[in-house]
Amino acid sequence: MKNSIGRELPEYIDGYGKVKPFKGAFVNMGIKEKTSVKIESVTPMDNKLLHSIDEALDKIDLKDGMTISFHHHLRNGDYVLNMVIEAMAKRNIKDITIAATSIFPVHAPLVQYIKDGVVTGIYAAYMSGPVADAVSNGLLKKPAVMHTHGGRARLIESGDLHIDIAFIAAPTADGYGNINGLFGKSACGSLGYAIADAEYADKVIAITDNLVPYPASPIEISQMYVDYVVKVDSIGDPAGIVSGTTKITKDPVGLRIAQMCAKAMEASGLVKDGVSFQTGAGGISLAVAAELKEIMKNKNIVGSFAAGGITGYIVDMLKEGLFRNLFDVQCFDLEAVESCATNTKHMRMSASMYGNPHNKGAVVNNLDIMILGATEIDTDFNVNVTTGSDGRIMGGSGGHSDTAAGSKLAIVVTKLIKGRLPIIKDKVTTVTTPGESIDLIVTERGIAVNPKRQDLIEKLKKSNLPVVNIEELKNIAEKMTGKPKPIQLSDEIVAVVEYRDGTVIDVVRKAL
Amino acid sequence: MKNSIGRELPEYIDGYGKVKPFKGAFVNMGIKEKTSVKIESVTPMDNKLLHSIDEALDKIDLKDGMTISFHHHLRNGDYVLNMVIEAMAKRNIKDITIAATSIFPVHAPLVQYIKDGVVTGIYAAYMSGPVADAVSNGLLKKPAVMHTHGGRARLIESGDLHIDIAFIAAPTADGYGNINGLFGKSACGSLGYAIADAEYADKVIAITDNLVPYPASPIEISQMYVDYVVKVDSIGDPAGIVSGTTKITKDPVGLRIAQMCAKAMEASGLVKDGVSFQTGAGGISLAVAAELKEIMKNKNIVGSFAAGGITGYIVDMLKEGLFRNLFDVQCFDLEAVESCATNTKHMRMSASMYGNPHNKGAVVNNLDIMILGATEIDTDFNVNVTTGSDGRIMGGSGGHSDTAAGSKLAIVVTKLIKGRLPIIKDKVTTVTTPGESIDLIVTERGIAVNPKRQDLIEKLKKSNLPVVNIEELKNIAEKMTGKPKPIQLSDEIVAVVEYRDGTVIDVVRKAL
Repeated sequence: MKNSIGRELPEYIDGYGKVKPFKGAFVNMGIKEKTSVKIESVTPMDNKLLHSIDEALDKIDLKDGMTISFHHHLRNGDYVLNMVIEAMAKRNIKDITIAATSIFPVHAPLVQYIKDGVVTGIYAAYMSGPVADAVSNGLLKKPAVMHTHGGRARLIESGDLHIDIAFIAAPTADGYGNINGLFGKSACGSLGYAIADAEYADKVIAITDNLVPYPASPIEISQMYVDYVVKVDSIGDPAGIVSGTTKITKDPVGLRIAQMCAKAMEASGLVKDGVSFQTGAGGISLAVAAELKEIMKNKNIVGSFAAGGITGYIVDMLKEGLFRNLFDVQCFDLEAVESCATNTKHMRMSASMYGNPHNKGAVVNNLDIMILGATEIDTDFNVNVTTGSDGRIMGGSGGHSDTAAGSKLAIVVTKLIKGRLPIIKDKVTTVTTPGESIDLIVTERGIAVNPKRQDLIEKLKKSNLPVVNIEELKNIAEKMTGKPKPIQLSDEIVAVVEYRDGTVIDVVRKAL
Repeated sequence: MKNSIGRELPEYIDGYGKVKPFKGAFVNMGIKEKTSVKIESVTPMDNKLLHSIDEALDKIDLKDGMTISFHHHLRNGDYVLNMVIEAMAKRNIKDITIAATSIFPVHAPLVQYIKDGVVTGIYAAYMSGPVADAVSNGLLKKPAVMHTHGGRARLIESGDLHIDIAFIAAPTADGYGNINGLFGKSACGSLGYAIADAEYADKVIAITDNLVPYPASPIEISQMYVDYVVKVDSIGDPAGIVSGTTKITKDPVGLRIAQMCAKAMEASGLVKDGVSFQTGAGGISLAVAAELKEIMKNKNIVGSFAAGGITGYIVDMLKEGLFRNLFDVQCFDLEAVESCATNTKHMRMSASMYGNPHNKGAVVNNLDIMILGATEIDTDFNVNVTTGSDGRIMGGSGGHSDTAAGSKLAIVVTKLIKGRLPIIKDKVTTVTTPGESIDLIVTERGIAVNPKRQDLIEKLKKSNLPVVNIEELKNIAEKMTGKPKPIQLSDEIVAVVEYRDGTVIDVVRKAL
């Protein structure tokens, strides 16, 4: 069968189940159920504090086929996932599904566990490095499920993804399970991606290297959700957890794109008091923030909020009064962590509050302007950030589809050519975000407007911005690079790309 | 049948259902289920902001027999409950159950709705004034259910109490449903009692008189739980919401009791670094806090936390560094509201985090010392704070049973005689809190120690404190007042007193 954007899908996928085809960004809405949760009551006589992961595993009825979860706030510095899976493998537990919010190169030891059948399933919003390669190579027994950040909260809250044990890396915790990510040698800031795990897993184990006297303060995850607290020497490598500073691109082409993007934002009429904004930590994305900052300062505009993964650059805009508040699901750098710990206007949010389409209104629903990246874009405006042009997994949606769906103006900023390959194609290798959610594509050679946004086309043309047809952009790029050869893919499905509502927007097939 | 403390209970109560008898404070524990919840997804195209309660009611499929809920943070200044029930009565909705966290004299208009059959059921942790009288008189069709603060969170989370519509008085809200109680003309501070309602009701309607630009900050209740926001002129009378200041007793007998209590606390060995403490807003309870403060200052003791309903007196102890943190489920006065809004060490907690016995460990579990009041105490140390000696409802547990169960040292401070009636009796009229949870009773004529606490008896005697048998205290009082005549009660049950775990600890029968 084909879904509504024409991607060919089987009706049933072994190791995944029945496929619900994607039918449009807001079709699968209405009344949804959050699942029930089993809680083991804790009395005043009970002790939660343990001194090793093994001691915690002793407390739990471990079984083959379990799903265990992790958050990625420690990013490429995370030790916790590897420590836990090693301890479980030693106990000969097999057929484990890892529900990690994202997977990084640091998780390379997983590859051997995948080969050994210790790990047979993976859920993640983003994957890069050796594990992504292993999945692309078809080593994982079941297809990986690639979801969005908001979609993961939905998966867990709905019960579609049942977590047996959530292991929560806790930069600060007290012995009764109150947790924050704000302090300690492994401080990472907001713990937004771990909230649903804490609320819905059968068992929740906090793993900390900074045990503080009761109560930890502030509390991002409450004691009422945590079964055990394990004290270990180190949960991560600070060098991998947060980057020192995130930087604006110095590339003149990137800067030109950012300037053009800012002008398009202005022309849209959205850059006014109360404007809300989100951008990523990439060089061009940050350059757009820099342009917006100048406009807001010059015009004395005060925005309502900036959201998302937060960088020092956005923190500076808060400090300068350009936004009243931040909504932070993840801190990208040390300045963001520091601000999140000290400025009450810098508010934390859970992944569900950030982007779950099936709650009573996520923060993305109130976003005016969203700046996005892309690996590939097709002439239907579909965006791929999941696979490279070789068909191999090298990323994932993260919040891409969530913010694109929610925002009034979703803009992809990209150079027309990357690594000698054209970005705009007839058909993307994998659809991560449907074209209906993308309003503008800003490149150094012009701006393509989604034809459904005739209002925007008018406004941009009035402002003398270089509006071009997306086919034209594709042709310009292909003239420079030549038309890329279509890649050869096998029939074997190595990953299922779930849209934020749990429908299947695409699958990743093994490259030949 | 009789429950484990010997109270006679029917096996089934009309309008309530099957009775699960109380079997001990920590018997009904183990694995418990939090129920599933139905959520209506909100898209970016949806609007939540409405301009009258009627407009909100128009959006909902109203039916006879619904359960609607309210919080009591606006206490005797609350307008919201009366406004809503009036609007529903006008639509001829009948047989409504009101699940209010507490009911105050300001809710007198409910009496007529009870008589008219508009309201046929009530759940509350505390009731005083005309509604309590009406229930005592047997006017309510179904027996009222009197629960604890933590027990209410349990009732809702378990699904034992299903809320169709939660109406949340919101001192500050934005148009998308982010709420706090910290600012605005009706500021009340923490909204801890309303959290479970927001999380579990089918529909959640915030009612505010202080609509702020998006996003409200900080956020006590998130947009992800709120269906509609209604702007009204006023949600309450500030004069009734918070008292200006709460005051220590000036009565010399009360002060003597407080001094003796403080000495007993010291003798227990718990008054040391890391001590945690809770007390009520009553005059003697506050005097105990004053005594504790002096001890802590003199001995350079730094406590971990104070919890509960927070008063300015406890805020001062935080400011002076005598506690590292506060856990606040409800602010009792303006100083507490101010502190809750500005001091990050002053943390808010939900009723579930405060006292739900069926989560993974409530804050009460970590309480060292709890100071409690009593209307009656019996020689088994059972405490009544639900009914007067005339058998009529004039209060309720609130957090009484929750904190008594959780704390290491639960102390009742009371004068031996109140209103010419002895406090200590052979048998209390109604058991609110079981004797097993009460460690000490401190009166002006001596301290009675629960016999199960032989360790405490030893410690107190070593400190030359006047330890007396509870029978002796009863006899002393009865010598002064005469033995009170047993009150005559009918067979008709007007209220069911639920222990925090949902078992029935007692019933209130209609007085003759």
